[in-house]
Amino acid sequence: MNIGIIGGGAIGLLCASYLTQYHDVTVFTRRNEQAEEIRAFGIERTVKGETCQASVHAQTGITGEFDLLIVTVKYHHLQDVLSELSTLSPHRILFLQNGMAHLLDLENWKTGHSLYIGVVEHGAMKMSDHEVNHTGIGIIKWGAFQHEAAADIKKALNETSFHFQMVYMDEWKKLLQEKLLVNVCINPLTTLLHVRNGALIQNPSYEYMMKCAFEEAVSILSLPEKERLWAYVNTVCENTAENQSSMLQDIVKGRQTERKAILGYLLKKAQAQGVAVPHLTFFDRSLEVLEKKQTKSFE
Amino acid sequence: MNIGIIGGGAIGLLCASYLTQYHDVTVFTRRNEQAEEIRAFGIERTVKGETCQASVHAQTGITGEFDLLIVTVKYHHLQDVLSELSTLSPHRILFLQNGMAHLLDLENWKTGHSLYIGVVEHGAMKMSDHEVNHTGIGIIKWGAFQHEAAADIKKALNETSFHFQMVYMDEWKKLLQEKLLVNVCINPLTTLLHVRNGALIQNPSYEYMMKCAFEEAVSILSLPEKERLWAYVNTVCENTAENQSSMLQDIVKGRQTERKAILGYLLKKAQAQGVAVPHLTFFDRSLEVLEKKQTKSFE
Repeated sequence: MNIGIIGGGAIGLLCASYLTQYHDVTVFTRRNEQAEEIRAFGIERTVKGETCQASVHAQTGITGEFDLLIVTVKYHHLQDVLSELSTLSPHRILFLQNGMAHLLDLENWKTGHSLYIGVVEHGAMKMSDHEVNHTGIGIIKWGAFQHEAAADIKKALNETSFHFQMVYMDEWKKLLQEKLLVNVCINPLTTLLHVRNGALIQNPSYEYMMKCAFEEAVSILSLPEKERLWAYVNTVCENTAENQSSMLQDIVKGRQTERKAILGYLLKKAQAQGVAVPHLTFFDRSLEVLEKKQTKSFE
Repeated sequence: MNIGIIGGGAIGLLCASYLTQYHDVTVFTRRNEQAEEIRAFGIERTVKGETCQASVHAQTGITGEFDLLIVTVKYHHLQDVLSELSTLSPHRILFLQNGMAHLLDLENWKTGHSLYIGVVEHGAMKMSDHEVNHTGIGIIKWGAFQHEAAADIKKALNETSFHFQMVYMDEWKKLLQEKLLVNVCINPLTTLLHVRNGALIQNPSYEYMMKCAFEEAVSILSLPEKERLWAYVNTVCENTAENQSSMLQDIVKGRQTERKAILGYLLKKAQAQGVAVPHLTFFDRSLEVLEKKQTKSFE
């Protein structure tokens, strides 16, 4: 297939470097310098100590005809990308954002495109504009958003590298919800407390606060199987005990966090349901303060 | 009386400027420049738009003989002051710190001095090294720490300005506890959320979080009359709705906060009692992160 990948972050580079083995790939970046660097050096992907180089096209400005477009930008850049995509002829577009806030935007998007949603279970870290570390080998699960069928790309995407499988499934919404639940339990707390993921289950007070966030999120999402889900959140903390959550990394590196994609979505839902979620509300506001390092006085 | 005031912060300057009307006052500052400035310009106190100038002695290094020493430094400077005071002949010393952490230090202090504890209910803001705004006219309630009587200074301190009364009472511990309770409800939350005091009762989610802190603190302090105290905390939020809490001001100005005097004391008590206080634990750690603006990665 002819695949266009929108976004040159960790996930964008990771997708491009694997998909170019079976497909013709173009990466669309925001900055021209990154596109130039990718054209000059290719994408260097390091996995388990081995580095591979992959050649891809790269440019700014989304133009051309593609069998599939994959949008890998963070949620806070999604609106700009949607505006740009609105100018294209009908395409099939797969969205790989974290959280669930993008679902609300896509529901409201009047478009002739066919939309797909994916859940990324890989770990990846961008090392430079053309280098990515594949730190956790996982899988991408994806499915059709709303009603569209997907027989042809389903077949085409089955041809992928062993380390980068893309699996079609109808139940992507449940997956997205469970990933959101894990994110909302781990990300805000580790960031506000400046601790690694494991601390949330090692310190009983932190675990209690995580449980408060969990209860509020489970209730907003109306998720069944609470016991299984709480055990799952604990397992993720255990398995990633030494990791710094992505949100903490964002704060440490002075980047915008995915606060809106994660907490923003749940707060919107809670408001629509008329449900109070004091802990999530508090986390959201405190993160905003920490993000802006608000040390200014009031006007 | 011959009174020595230790500390040139807002409360130190306020005490000195009023007490010099009836007593011979010396202010002890940490920095020589401040002592020089006070000697050169006196202390300028502004209250309700009127500015008065008061002459006092000022120096660094606590030396001399006094009928009363008043310690006004913040809790995190108390240890240094106690060491310096240990070198003096027996004096009567009144401590005006916020929180209750200093009580633990004074209990463990082997000293021949007679100790008194005061609760400051004034609002004051330091405008420069020799200027103070008396923003809220209140009262200082004080009493003897442990067993000492205080007949003579009780009489002497009755002679004070109308705007600066010092009232003796036996029940200072209860007052200190209730002030601590108000502080632990208002200060950490307003600081982490970067909001004025009134927001805590205007936003139901913030009020819920305040209630969580309240419940934990009331339980640690074994305070009776919970309903009255919760109403009291709410009244303080209402009466100071437009104010920024002192802790928020400290963060905004890049100063050390009174986190240890307020949360540190309660966490120590909780640990001794074997009681879990997850919200207070979380506030303490998050404030530490905000204080240090920890944006460094882990080692």
